Amino acid sequence: MRLRNVKNASERIINSDYIVLDYENYKGDFKSLFKNDNPIRLEIGMGKGNFIINNAIKYPDINFIGVEKFDSVIVRALEKAQEYDLPNLKMIRMDANMIGDIFKNEIEILYLNFSDPWPKDRHHKRRLTSRYFLEKYEGIFASKKNIIMKTDNRHLFEFSLKEFVACDYKIDDISLDLYKEDLSDNVQTEYEYKFSQKGNPIYKVSVTK
Amino acid sequence: MRLRNVKNASERIINSDYIVLDYENYKGDFKSLFKNDNPIRLEIGMGKGNFIINNAIKYPDINFIGVEKFDSVIVRALEKAQEYDLPNLKMIRMDANMIGDIFKNEIEILYLNFSDPWPKDRHHKRRLTSRYFLEKYEGIFASKKNIIMKTDNRHLFEFSLKEFVACDYKIDDISLDLYKEDLSDNVQTEYEYKFSQKGNPIYKVSVTK
Repeated sequence: MRLRNVKNASERIINSDYIVLDYENYKGDFKSLFKNDNPIRLEIGMGKGNFIINNAIKYPDINFIGVEKFDSVIVRALEKAQEYDLPNLKMIRMDANMIGDIFKNEIEILYLNFSDPWPKDRHHKRRLTSRYFLEKYEGIFASKKNIIMKTDNRHLFEFSLKEFVACDYKIDDISLDLYKEDLSDNVQTEYEYKFSQKGNPIYKVSVTK
Repeated sequence: MRLRNVKNASERIINSDYIVLDYENYKGDFKSLFKNDNPIRLEIGMGKGNFIINNAIKYPDINFIGVEKFDSVIVRALEKAQEYDLPNLKMIRMDANMIGDIFKNEIEILYLNFSDPWPKDRHHKRRLTSRYFLEKYEGIFASKKNIIMKTDNRHLFEFSLKEFVACDYKIDDISLDLYKEDLSDNVQTEYEYKFSQKGNPIYKVSVTK
């Protein structure tokens, strides 16, 4: 994610209903935030928000939470979301390291889209699909654990498959070239659009435990 | 594998030392065939034999057995093997369905290279990486189970990953584009050479249990 300096990013975030500033108050009880019992799906690293916003539009009976670390990126997502009225969408500015402390037995699906590949070996723990992070996600799921990842980065995908399987996830569904499949159910991210246009294969896997 | 009618294929097979006609006599005791305690590696569907012959040349202290169903294909492998003197190489004409009845606690690595993808869903049980076959392989391994597969067929590879993992194999090593990796250790098959020349990705995985 290339970051541009966005003017007054923090202020604009404070003034939006989409943003949950007091997320620590909802620890393990995010359904009270949405005021319903619908399933909650989480995206870590939502970037400019295309994926999570389009999902929220497409599935009004499912709640979506997008987590992102950088104000300047969240502002871009906010700008898009504000074109719609989406009571089933919330955004949180938070570091992924905190995930396990904030969500407890309440997530249906965790989405990891085009995460930072951290290509250097010595940074492997920083990859959001490392066993180090998979362990952090253990307690967030309502019942069956389900992680769905997409990436154009071959090495990150190879690494992630090994890590998922090492942590006893099974492979429910996998595509090694998503844009050669039936795409009627696919919701694109910004990156995905850009990379698929270049003809690079997009990898996708859904794992469960 | 496109089959050409090869003249006198059966006779030529009968007259070669590389071919084990009485393989049923070595059931569970193939080291007596090789007359040593070296590890034994098995390839099911060796085709014209490039892979297994080049391995046998490269690793004289490992024994190799190639299994193939068709006389007319084995003859091609034989023609190549007969250019060398390889006491660590044997070939068996046999259907893969019999594998579990013939090999018992004696295989170090099972190779499945460019197996028939059986693209129709209803034929999935015929794929050599289906859980139906994986179950047949269970008893053949000396200790740790290790299967190494290569293919250019994306759907077969996606299917195989799901099946391996469903049967509790872990992913030791995986490449989603083998020809972009360091290839110093790679031994090519005939198919592989042909397909990699076309620029198609070659997939490879090593799974263990």
